[in-house]
Amino acid sequence: MRDDPAEAETISQRLMMRAGLIRKLTSGVYSYLPLGFTVLNKVINVVREEMNRAGAQEILMPVLQPSELWQETGRLDAFGDLMCKFKDRFGRVNILGPTHEEVVTNIVRNEINSYRQLPFTLYQIQVKFRDEIRPRFGVIRSREFLMKDAYSFDVDAAGMGKSYDAMYDAYCRIFSRCGLKYTAVEADTGLIGGDVSHEFMVPSPSGEDQMVKCEKCGYAANKEKAECVVVEQRTDERHLPIKDVATPNCITVDDVAKCLKVKPSLILKTLIYKADKEYLAVLVRGDIEVNINKLVRATGLPHLELADGKDVEKVTGAPFGSCGPVGLKVKNIADNSVKDMVNFIVGANKRDYHTINVNLGRDFDADIFADIRYAVAGDPCPKCGSPIEFSNGIEVGHVFKLGTKYSEKMKALYQDESGATHPMQMGCYGIGVNRIIAAAIENSNDENGIIWPPEIAPYKAVIVSINPKDKKVADTSENIHNILVDAGIETLWDDRDLTAGVKFKDADLVGIPIRLTIGAKTLENGTVDIKLRNRKEQKSVKISSILEEVEKIKNQK
Amino acid sequence: MRDDPAEAETISQRLMMRAGLIRKLTSGVYSYLPLGFTVLNKVINVVREEMNRAGAQEILMPVLQPSELWQETGRLDAFGDLMCKFKDRFGRVNILGPTHEEVVTNIVRNEINSYRQLPFTLYQIQVKFRDEIRPRFGVIRSREFLMKDAYSFDVDAAGMGKSYDAMYDAYCRIFSRCGLKYTAVEADTGLIGGDVSHEFMVPSPSGEDQMVKCEKCGYAANKEKAECVVVEQRTDERHLPIKDVATPNCITVDDVAKCLKVKPSLILKTLIYKADKEYLAVLVRGDIEVNINKLVRATGLPHLELADGKDVEKVTGAPFGSCGPVGLKVKNIADNSVKDMVNFIVGANKRDYHTINVNLGRDFDADIFADIRYAVAGDPCPKCGSPIEFSNGIEVGHVFKLGTKYSEKMKALYQDESGATHPMQMGCYGIGVNRIIAAAIENSNDENGIIWPPEIAPYKAVIVSINPKDKKVADTSENIHNILVDAGIETLWDDRDLTAGVKFKDADLVGIPIRLTIGAKTLENGTVDIKLRNRKEQKSVKISSILEEVEKIKNQK
Repeated sequence: MRDDPAEAETISQRLMMRAGLIRKLTSGVYSYLPLGFTVLNKVINVVREEMNRAGAQEILMPVLQPSELWQETGRLDAFGDLMCKFKDRFGRVNILGPTHEEVVTNIVRNEINSYRQLPFTLYQIQVKFRDEIRPRFGVIRSREFLMKDAYSFDVDAAGMGKSYDAMYDAYCRIFSRCGLKYTAVEADTGLIGGDVSHEFMVPSPSGEDQMVKCEKCGYAANKEKAECVVVEQRTDERHLPIKDVATPNCITVDDVAKCLKVKPSLILKTLIYKADKEYLAVLVRGDIEVNINKLVRATGLPHLELADGKDVEKVTGAPFGSCGPVGLKVKNIADNSVKDMVNFIVGANKRDYHTINVNLGRDFDADIFADIRYAVAGDPCPKCGSPIEFSNGIEVGHVFKLGTKYSEKMKALYQDESGATHPMQMGCYGIGVNRIIAAAIENSNDENGIIWPPEIAPYKAVIVSINPKDKKVADTSENIHNILVDAGIETLWDDRDLTAGVKFKDADLVGIPIRLTIGAKTLENGTVDIKLRNRKEQKSVKISSILEEVEKIKNQK
Repeated sequence: MRDDPAEAETISQRLMMRAGLIRKLTSGVYSYLPLGFTVLNKVINVVREEMNRAGAQEILMPVLQPSELWQETGRLDAFGDLMCKFKDRFGRVNILGPTHEEVVTNIVRNEINSYRQLPFTLYQIQVKFRDEIRPRFGVIRSREFLMKDAYSFDVDAAGMGKSYDAMYDAYCRIFSRCGLKYTAVEADTGLIGGDVSHEFMVPSPSGEDQMVKCEKCGYAANKEKAECVVVEQRTDERHLPIKDVATPNCITVDDVAKCLKVKPSLILKTLIYKADKEYLAVLVRGDIEVNINKLVRATGLPHLELADGKDVEKVTGAPFGSCGPVGLKVKNIADNSVKDMVNFIVGANKRDYHTINVNLGRDFDADIFADIRYAVAGDPCPKCGSPIEFSNGIEVGHVFKLGTKYSEKMKALYQDESGATHPMQMGCYGIGVNRIIAAAIENSNDENGIIWPPEIAPYKAVIVSINPKDKKVADTSENIHNILVDAGIETLWDDRDLTAGVKFKDADLVGIPIRLTIGAKTLENGTVDIKLRNRKEQKSVKISSILEEVEKIKNQK
């Protein structure tokens, strides 16, 4: 494409479209054209080689999955509308696999029953489906995508740890070979579950995920996981007398702050959550956000959701925006940051009123204190206390220690030497194969186009023939093409009848690492011009030395 | 598995299950375990190499397809319930691709516009979905399967012919390399369309498809396509007077034949078909079947279906089983075989009555004569007249000359040198990747298990260590394993602590071409026993000569 596609929001999407790697078929669904497929296949091969090197065994599980398996683990509801599914002609619900924990656990529980058969790791490279609300950024958030997913099975937690480490190391090798600048960060386990997990993030301004890093000690976590430590800053400020004040039409923290001319950090937010039939008041400082994952972990209540207006009135006697903890009958949980607040403002539990000069201990008590908030820039690093920084990234891989979450529910058991049965210890490990391509482009491009990392470049070299109708140019080009290809160097020959300018532009756009230019002028001197895509300089090389020269520079980064 | 799975109907399904290649997840849906995936991957590589050698370019199109594309070609209705589809969260209908003609034509019409860019052939290896009424025979008729599908685009019919021939030849190479005994047969084009097509069939008693062959001249076609030639056999038998006779409770041809004590071939079947709002009487001899594909072609009516009882009564005045052509007001079409019938029996168009001694010309006329029946064993070969034979086969590939069926409807046009636009000439070409594995096993097995063709065997060699706890046995086995693997010979080492008998049985079941047995006894003589899976004899080979010996026999068929 000569022009940028209108829909492209990110550099990688724009360049993948323009260079003819992909075409959109419908929302969040892309075809790979020949050049794009070549790159995809190279990435697949890197992934496969490193998984095999790590001792994992390749299998292929189906896209179609019976919903009954997902009922066993309770994840049918947890995935909800994110799942693509259809009823077949017999009325059975078929799920289009968004992930394969249930299927692999089902296979293993039917085949394996002794500690002698453990440990092992299975993996597959298979298409996955998620009915995203907002597919975007090309292949980064799509409804159909290629995933490498692996699953480890061990007798105990120590074994699981080893399997986890082997996968973690394989992931590092994969992302390095694909030329990515990545960071492994501690991550939340979300819908997949388990206790420990790491995400592999590629820093990029167009990444959807936010991560936290400490430059000083190297601590790194994603936004959902990043721990917020308590730094006691309690002042000895005198507790003032409590008092209700009118705050007409104030709903949000900002409304109240404006009305009462205070900072949002002086206001306590009270949010009412519903968990099945129980209600819970969640208390946080007005300027920070509740982290639902942390809240679920801290309370042990998996089905928490914000109560609706009717329920809020039932519980507090007041509408949204006027709730507060004083005199409230339901259980509450407060973020650690609340400990430091003095003479703060809360909803008065009556419409259009707030209470000022509220203090913990005197006016109400917190039932639980916990870390239930998102980190914010400048928070102290939980490891060393230095201020943390935020940046955006693309998640290209995620590894999980699952423990026995699936094996217990689905009865994937083994017998130990004494004949006693135990659930297997599992891990699971995912790589977004398509995302590796997008992330590599986000990492490595310039104003003219893609600059491929050597290992995943669709071709190592491109021959640009200037005026290919000139017989000597055509013959020499073909000859050099054959020499390179015979030496195992994948080489594209641009013999189109177009101007040199157009062909150079296309070569830059497509990003092939080595460009060889052959024309009547270079042939006068018996040379060819060689230029690396990631360098400015060009040099003339004698035709007889071309193979030697290309071999020398072909893996140059 | 020690025992045969109850559900396995065919040899290949039984052996694929027992040898641990596949496991059923749900009806018509299978997982490939490590050994099965290894074979699948080898088949994929053979397919890919031969497609690339033929100059086709690999792409990857999505599983999810918007229904709008299928409306353009009218195939949404044609596929009907065979299609898997679901509504996404925004209410859009997503089709799970059963094939990709619409998607590839959509890509090409957006990218290509000049004769200069033609010809080319694109292909992919991608999972496909069909909601089969009766999935069966393991991976042979499944709801989810892997297909290699290719599509050629040319400026004219001659070019399309060349592209078709190139694919045909590539298919021959692929099936030969995979060790299949195959036959290419003329085939009907069915739901895909076009004028010319060939199926690649692997003869097997458990094949679902029937094919016709003439041993004398080599003519071969599938049952749907096989031409039935008219052999005039008219007798000069005198036409007897027409007469109605009672046939109480006779519905089928057999009922009537029994009741009137005649052969079914003396009865004329009259079937009422509905085409949109038109009705059609279809006349065939009582002992032969109507071929709906031929009927559609002969009448030019694409939406023919058998009329229901109510419509039959409306058209003929009689229920099913009593219809006949005499005095009927709707148009009729008669199979050529009807020409030879004399003094035959037809339904009387009144309940429980038939008319005997009916004759063409005197009592009614056929509006059209055509070949609208299935061939039967003993029919004359349409090429040479010798009697044809029937056999069963597994369809592993199908190639089609599509012409402009899709390019016209979807406006995939190119400009010629003069600037005039034309629809592209297309071909399409499919291979059932999973079926190659099943067909190879159907072709090559014995009572002990699979006998893999060398090129798709999961491993070339298996080392069976007798008593692997014996250190010398274990060390020598490992050493030989390393020598073979380092030489690029994929070798499995069975070091399980099981009896020699069990390990030999498993080696035979899994079907690895070369078996090396290493035990204390063989080592006494400094030898290893080598046996080919497809031979009875075993021979002793000096350890120092093993690599040489294995290299010599590794591709032996």
